[in-house]
Amino acid sequence: MTEDRRRPGGRAARVAARAAGLERDLRPVRPGLTGGAYRPLTERDMQQVFDTALDLLANVGMGSPIPAFIEVVTAAGGSVDDHGRLLYPRHVVERAIETAAKSWVWHGFDEDQSIELADNKVHFGTAGAAVLILDHADQTFRHSSTQDLYDLARLADTLDNIHFFARPVVTREAADSRELDINTAYASMLGTAKPVGTSFFQPEHVYEVVEMFDIAMGGEGEFAKRPFVCANNTFVVPPLRFAVESAECMVAQVRVGMPINLLSAGQAGATSPAPLAGSLAQALAECLAALTGVNLLSPGHPCVMGLWPFVSDLRTGAMSGGSGEEAVLAAAAAQIANWLGLPSGVPAGMADSKIPDAQAGHEKGLTIALAGHAGANLVYESAGMLASLLACSPEMLVIDNDLLGAANRTIRGIEVNADTLATDVIKDVVYGAGHFLGHEQTLRLMQREYLYPMVGDRQSPDDWLDAGGLSVADRAHAYVTRVLETHVPMHVSRQADDEIRRRFPILLAGRP
Amino acid sequence: MTEDRRRPGGRAARVAARAAGLERDLRPVRPGLTGGAYRPLTERDMQQVFDTALDLLANVGMGSPIPAFIEVVTAAGGSVDDHGRLLYPRHVVERAIETAAKSWVWHGFDEDQSIELADNKVHFGTAGAAVLILDHADQTFRHSSTQDLYDLARLADTLDNIHFFARPVVTREAADSRELDINTAYASMLGTAKPVGTSFFQPEHVYEVVEMFDIAMGGEGEFAKRPFVCANNTFVVPPLRFAVESAECMVAQVRVGMPINLLSAGQAGATSPAPLAGSLAQALAECLAALTGVNLLSPGHPCVMGLWPFVSDLRTGAMSGGSGEEAVLAAAAAQIANWLGLPSGVPAGMADSKIPDAQAGHEKGLTIALAGHAGANLVYESAGMLASLLACSPEMLVIDNDLLGAANRTIRGIEVNADTLATDVIKDVVYGAGHFLGHEQTLRLMQREYLYPMVGDRQSPDDWLDAGGLSVADRAHAYVTRVLETHVPMHVSRQADDEIRRRFPILLAGRP
Repeated sequence: MTEDRRRPGGRAARVAARAAGLERDLRPVRPGLTGGAYRPLTERDMQQVFDTALDLLANVGMGSPIPAFIEVVTAAGGSVDDHGRLLYPRHVVERAIETAAKSWVWHGFDEDQSIELADNKVHFGTAGAAVLILDHADQTFRHSSTQDLYDLARLADTLDNIHFFARPVVTREAADSRELDINTAYASMLGTAKPVGTSFFQPEHVYEVVEMFDIAMGGEGEFAKRPFVCANNTFVVPPLRFAVESAECMVAQVRVGMPINLLSAGQAGATSPAPLAGSLAQALAECLAALTGVNLLSPGHPCVMGLWPFVSDLRTGAMSGGSGEEAVLAAAAAQIANWLGLPSGVPAGMADSKIPDAQAGHEKGLTIALAGHAGANLVYESAGMLASLLACSPEMLVIDNDLLGAANRTIRGIEVNADTLATDVIKDVVYGAGHFLGHEQTLRLMQREYLYPMVGDRQSPDDWLDAGGLSVADRAHAYVTRVLETHVPMHVSRQADDEIRRRFPILLAGRP
Repeated sequence: MTEDRRRPGGRAARVAARAAGLERDLRPVRPGLTGGAYRPLTERDMQQVFDTALDLLANVGMGSPIPAFIEVVTAAGGSVDDHGRLLYPRHVVERAIETAAKSWVWHGFDEDQSIELADNKVHFGTAGAAVLILDHADQTFRHSSTQDLYDLARLADTLDNIHFFARPVVTREAADSRELDINTAYASMLGTAKPVGTSFFQPEHVYEVVEMFDIAMGGEGEFAKRPFVCANNTFVVPPLRFAVESAECMVAQVRVGMPINLLSAGQAGATSPAPLAGSLAQALAECLAALTGVNLLSPGHPCVMGLWPFVSDLRTGAMSGGSGEEAVLAAAAAQIANWLGLPSGVPAGMADSKIPDAQAGHEKGLTIALAGHAGANLVYESAGMLASLLACSPEMLVIDNDLLGAANRTIRGIEVNADTLATDVIKDVVYGAGHFLGHEQTLRLMQREYLYPMVGDRQSPDDWLDAGGLSVADRAHAYVTRVLETHVPMHVSRQADDEIRRRFPILLAGRP
């Protein structure tokens, strides 16, 4: 299916790995390494947050409930109160948690790229709805386009440490919500064979886009067999009120067998409480409301507990994605979803900085480290994002890939056994060569235990100056240029692509 | 004692904190918050690493032992083997761990700046021996000087999230090791009233420098009463061999009552085993050898288990301070020292990048997040360092202070109780205003729960562009200029300073 899957940047590493006979399991990092060594909340903390969420659902419930949810929730024992709010008794929610899918496979268009959401398995990927792109050519902000989305997908397709691609930018030239939904799905699918995430404004677009996926995959019903697209469904207007059209999209997504990221994105101090614990409890309540609705409609439907509890800079009320408050809150969100046995998806890697500078770097480093080690099954927004999700940068995406690799290396952790404790090797060296540089063990572990950055530089100051004294953004810029010139994924066949272009209002120029 | 302690940058925050009546305990972050929520090693892992270290000490021991250590260790039951190596039986080391200080206070020259090393209390500070400075004026590399060291100390003195100042750069214009040791101690002490770390080439310099400290503190014997300087003592040439002169300095430091950071800085793949577990075991063995010697000389002498297990880029053999391998290894080192009940000090925040760019940022973010959450009592090298410790940058120091604040905010964690779970507040908002922005709770928590960066930017892209579109390095540059022009700490009196200048070969120009 792939006519050309050149991966300019990762190629050297890949060739090296292959030369060393390194299968996927022997590489220093891979998708789905086990996190969970960082536990920001105690058992008692989690129980209290969970009890608060259940209390909120039972007594305050969700505003603006749609008929489909009212029907199943009241049939299960819920009710609608005098304010028109749908109340979820504790046992109804607990039953939904029991029936919910505890693990599922998010397929890639290329099956080798599929990832399994389970336990504390960690995956990093993109997401967002940035309206600005930091333009590759001139490094200024402009509105994002379908071409940008496709280019970001193509870039992500070449980056080993980005495991899934949910759309990071809005296709702003789309004339209406239908054109937007169709083109968002299309450009993402065409640009990468990795698992894809997209979103929908209207339920009818869900059905239409699945028709498109079926064509791409070779025929009617193919998508439902191997759904490679997960819907990012922002079903809630916090606090505790359904976004009606998104909730209706959710019902459609259940019907077509599309996995759903149940996405609650309150913002502490603005649309959720200022104390982080309350913000977490509210987000959990909201996600559980959706999980209950979905599982009553279709028990075991693949879902992500998409707790995206954002925080505000309380001086201005604006979102701060790169703060310490955000870092610990997202990590706690992952921990509590996993504690309930449910697949978790949280945001990290959002930077408040507007450009790929040291601020962006350390904001990403801190937030990604904690979300990953908390065991988030899906770390969303983890590459490319700037300006607290308002902007995306292709160069940042490439730089972040290095960070994600290093973070993954830390999640892999330290294997402790007789071989790695190396008592005999130490004795060899103490009584022999005096150093470990040429030792057989050192050479053996060079590709298995140690990961090397792609655009990160480790030269001495002199060598670095001789090589031009470039910043990592400069080096990433060169990588982006190379990939955008050469990498044209062909997993969607020309025939299928032609048919899609005949039937749908595709904005993107055709492939070369 | 302080004639002028203007703090240009932190002033606004400080004024705001004061206005809000915020005592130290109510601020969002403070020195000594409790880490330990990240546990890279299992209990069994730690036991195995510890057993390996004890096995190495009992059977391989330490090469080049100095007479003072041979005497006390053999008297306690140890022996010297046929290779001239000093062997430490298991019970001798275990006894030393028992007698070792489990907690102690590292004083500041200003007592309010003192920090307590205990349990999982986390502190961030500087350290290193960079030979290059990224010059403030023209942002090019040049040899570091005594003036640079003094300037870095003055900067650190104004930065709230840097809790101690160990010398980050070498005073390269010093004519000999005596001039270097004296001027390193002097410039650090003069530049900051926070706890200071320094190092020594020769034992006689230890005695001489303490005379200088006594003068600064007001008379003979004053330093021993309130030692504000901890010696960074690199006593080992790994694997498992004493650095003779440093070991002799250690004996001198014990005699004068100077706390000691027992510093083992092997480099995995070069001077310690390539597998991270072996590297950790070797470092632990080396630090325990020193701890045993010190505690046999003076039971309970204040020490830091200075496990600085560095890693190599195995393609070149060069050190890689910003790698994922380094991040997890340093965190594990902190965890195992704390597990033994001993004060821990590990490196983090070292960047391989040569400049304050996104690479430097994310390398620092990842390594600092993990060392801090592992509970390191002292996180060394955590501000200012570049090029894997070869270089230091004043701008980087200021940027890193923001990262350390955010990291500290995550270490503080999430308080879960009835107030923070905010059920009543959520109900207020659901049935009332619809948002939390003006809620009493939000306003109350604005300064207590939320931390604001000093040079980090959180504006919208438009506002940021209107403000000049600066990088964080640009903003830090302006801060550095301001501080170096205005901040002249005066905790060492003019009279004492004059006497020091009469008696010692001081290189630094006098204070204005």
